[in-house]
Amino acid sequence: GDAARGKEISTTCAACHGTDGNSTTAEFPRIAGQHEDYLRQALTDYKAGKRRNPIMAAQVESLDKRDIADLSAWFASQKGLYFKR
Amino acid sequence: GDAARGKEISTTCAACHGTDGNSTTAEFPRIAGQHEDYLRQALTDYKAGKRRNPIMAAQVESLDKRDIADLSAWFASQKGLYFKR
Repeated sequence: GDAARGKEISTTCAACHGTDGNSTTAEFPRIAGQHEDYLRQALTDYKAGKRRNPIMAAQVESLDKRDIADLSAWFASQKGLYFKR
Repeated sequence: GDAARGKEISTTCAACHGTDGNSTTAEFPRIAGQHEDYLRQALTDYKAGKRRNPIMAAQVESLDKRDIADLSAWFASQKGLYFKR
């Protein structure tokens, strides 16, 4: 996917997952540095209802294959932050 | 949870997710540095069948609350590696 375009359309995702995908609340998973294919598969499964989450179901409704690929590329290319426990 | 004990019981998890949780195959999500509560919630939901995945369902069957808490602590405390795309 095209990470640059992914960044442009990632504003809604950032609301929960954090601008670079390093969400600061445990309720929303960190997606920074996650595998691009894993993210694409998860989004595709949310869209197909194969993976169920009420919040995500609403988010992916308006996404097409290209958006899913680009968003996956963007968040996969972010650095996974490490918080000292 | 107790990350040290989590490390001891994480061998089976490491088979797919990688010794420190940085899986190298897109099929298995990276869990290194993921939120501890998120991991604990995910494992608990897999065990309760609220989150469905055939592989994970089998894995969590033998885990009790303490195992789930300790495994979550261990993988959450790992550094999320960042692979240059």
